Amino acid sequence: MSEDLLLMIPGPTVVPSRVTRAMSAPILPHRGKEFSDMFVEQMDRLKKVFRTKNDVYILCGSGTAAMEASLSNTISSNDKVLCLINGKFSERFSEIASNLKANVIELQFEWGIPVNVKSVKEALDKNTDIKAVTMVFNETSTGVRNPVEEVGEIVRGTDAILIVDTISALGGDVFESDLWNVDICVSGSQKCFAMPPGLAFISVSDKAWRVIDANDSMAYYLNLKNYRKDKSHAPYTPPVSLIYGLRESLDIIDEEGLENRWERHKDMANIAREGIKALDMELFCSDEAYCSNTVTAVKAPDYLDVALLRKTLRTRFGIEIAGGQAHLKGKIFRIGHMGVISEREVNSVLTSIELVLEEM
Amino acid sequence: MSEDLLLMIPGPTVVPSRVTRAMSAPILPHRGKEFSDMFVEQMDRLKKVFRTKNDVYILCGSGTAAMEASLSNTISSNDKVLCLINGKFSERFSEIASNLKANVIELQFEWGIPVNVKSVKEALDKNTDIKAVTMVFNETSTGVRNPVEEVGEIVRGTDAILIVDTISALGGDVFESDLWNVDICVSGSQKCFAMPPGLAFISVSDKAWRVIDANDSMAYYLNLKNYRKDKSHAPYTPPVSLIYGLRESLDIIDEEGLENRWERHKDMANIAREGIKALDMELFCSDEAYCSNTVTAVKAPDYLDVALLRKTLRTRFGIEIAGGQAHLKGKIFRIGHMGVISEREVNSVLTSIELVLEEM
Repeated sequence: MSEDLLLMIPGPTVVPSRVTRAMSAPILPHRGKEFSDMFVEQMDRLKKVFRTKNDVYILCGSGTAAMEASLSNTISSNDKVLCLINGKFSERFSEIASNLKANVIELQFEWGIPVNVKSVKEALDKNTDIKAVTMVFNETSTGVRNPVEEVGEIVRGTDAILIVDTISALGGDVFESDLWNVDICVSGSQKCFAMPPGLAFISVSDKAWRVIDANDSMAYYLNLKNYRKDKSHAPYTPPVSLIYGLRESLDIIDEEGLENRWERHKDMANIAREGIKALDMELFCSDEAYCSNTVTAVKAPDYLDVALLRKTLRTRFGIEIAGGQAHLKGKIFRIGHMGVISEREVNSVLTSIELVLEEM
Repeated sequence: MSEDLLLMIPGPTVVPSRVTRAMSAPILPHRGKEFSDMFVEQMDRLKKVFRTKNDVYILCGSGTAAMEASLSNTISSNDKVLCLINGKFSERFSEIASNLKANVIELQFEWGIPVNVKSVKEALDKNTDIKAVTMVFNETSTGVRNPVEEVGEIVRGTDAILIVDTISALGGDVFESDLWNVDICVSGSQKCFAMPPGLAFISVSDKAWRVIDANDSMAYYLNLKNYRKDKSHAPYTPPVSLIYGLRESLDIIDEEGLENRWERHKDMANIAREGIKALDMELFCSDEAYCSNTVTAVKAPDYLDVALLRKTLRTRFGIEIAGGQAHLKGKIFRIGHMGVISEREVNSVLTSIELVLEEM
C-alpha cells in the first residue's frame, strides 16, 4: 500500500506539495502591512474565481460557518425563507434557518433529482414576502448539479436574495456568481481549491448588503458588517498559515487558467462516469445533464457491500472514496474528482474498483 | 536583518519547526477512524492543559469564535450578564453579550488595574439573577493578570456561571479551571500553544451544560450541543492540518511538562520586567503581583515614539513587538513572551530596545 492515502472523497482533497510548502512559512504579524497586503490581494483574486464584482470575504471556519453567515446576517425570526432541498447540504440551510426561528418553506425534491425550477417559481409567486432563497449548486451528498442560473433568473425579479452554496464546486466547475444573479455565494478551501480545510469564502451583492444593513443580526464572529468595516484586516485573528496556502492555491489556479480548470474537471467527471457505466453500474443522479463535475455518486449494485469496497480500496490500494450519507448509507458510493485530481488518479480509482468487483 | 521575523507580539507567536513539519502531513479523511482517534485524543490531552475534568471542544475559528460560543450558547435576550472590564478583550465579551440583546451590567476598571474582587461580590449580591459573569484572565491589551481564582470563589456560590477568556495565557501561565471554579474557559492555538491561528478551545462544566440545555440558542456552527452529540467527530469539517499541529504542540508541552512551562513563562516575564525597569521604564500594570507572565506592557516615556521604536526593531533587528490598542495607542508598547520563547529571545528584544533607545 502507498504510504500516502489518495483522497478521492468529495473533500477534503489531496493538497499539492506547493501548497503545503507555502503554509510552512514563518507566521507574519497579522496586523502588519505585509500580511495585510497579502490578505487583501487574495480577497481580490477570489473575486475572479467567484466571477463577481461583489465583495468576497475570507472567514476562518468550515463551509458551514459561511452557510450560517449567509443566513444569520440576512434573516431574523419570522422572516420567510424558501429552502430548495435535494440532499444533505441543502437540508443544512433549512436547519440553520429554523434555528434562527425563520419561517421556513421547504421545497423538497427527491435526492438524486435536480431542483425543479417551475416549482420554485410557483413558490415565489405564492409567497411574495420571501426574503431569501437557499440552494446548493453542487450537492456533494448526491452528485447532482442544480440549475442555479435558472433559479437566479427567477429570484432576480423578486425582492428575495438568492443564497447559493458552491462549496464543493467553486474553482472546479463552471460557476458565474454575477451572470447567474447569485446574491450570496459561499465556498470553502478544502474542495476544488485543493487546500486543507479551515477557510470559508463568502461573496455579498449590493442587494444582499441592503438586506444585511436593514437586518438586526445577533451574529458577532460571523457578522459580515465587521468584515466590511476595514477590509485591509480580518476583524479577528486570521489563520495566517492557511492564507499562505490560499495564495499558492490561487497561483496554481491562475497558472492553469480558471476555464481550463473547469474543462479538466468536466473531463475527469466524464472519465469517471463512463468508467462506472463500463463496469455495469448506474449513476445516482437521475439525469446525466445534471451530474456533478466534481463528485460522482454511484448506485451500489445489490451484490455490492459498500463498506467492504471502501475498506478494500483503502487497505489494498491506499485509495479513499466516500459512502452515502443519511438514508443513502450503504446504497451509494461517491468518488470525488476535484482540486488537482487528474486522469492518473481517476483511472487509478476506476481500475482499483474494477479489480475489487472482479474478486467479489 | 534576519530573514525570519522574531515575533515578540502577544500572539500569534513563533511556531517551532516541529509543529510546521507536523502540519505538512497529507490530509486524512476527516470522517475516518485514524483521524477521529487522533482528534479525540487531542481533546482529551487539552483537558490536562485546562486542568479540568470537563469536556473540552476544539473549534475551527479564532479565539473570538470561542468567546462568542461561551455566550451565544448560554445567554438569550434579556438575560443578565455581568461583564468585568479592564481592557480590550474583556470589553469584547460585553459587545458580544449586547449583540445577543442580553441585559449587560458592565463593571469597569481602569485599564492597567486588575479586576476588584470586592466590587464583583457587591454586583452579584445586588443582582441575584445574573446568569453569567465574564472576565479575561490575562488581558493581552494591558498585560494584567486578573484574579480569576478569587472571582471563581464568589461566583461558585451563586446561580451564575463564570466564563473566562484565557486565550493569551493557557499553556503558559498557571491556570486551574476546576480548582478556580471556571465554568466555561476559552483559549486559542496561536498564543502559548505556539501554533498558527485557526483553532479555538472551549471547556464546559456541568453547571454550564445545565444552563446551555435550558437555553434556546440560535447558534449553529458554534452550537456546543452539536459538538457534544458525537464527540468522536467534529460536527463540521475540522481544519485537519491544524489538528496535526496541535498534536505536535501538545507533545512539546508534555515533554517540557506543563508546570515547567509555567515556570519558564514566569522566568521570562521576570527577565522582561527587570530588563524594562533597568532601562528606566515603567510597567503599565499597576501592581507587579498582577503582571502578566506572557505579555509585558510598558509605559512609553515621553521622549519615545512607539511607532518609530517598533519600526526600528523590525527593520534593523527583525523583531516585531506590539503597540497599544484603542486609547493606549502610542502610550504603551507590549512585548509578548509566550509559547516557545526562551531567554535567548527575551534578551535579544531587551538588548535591541536598549540600543534603539540609546540612539534616540
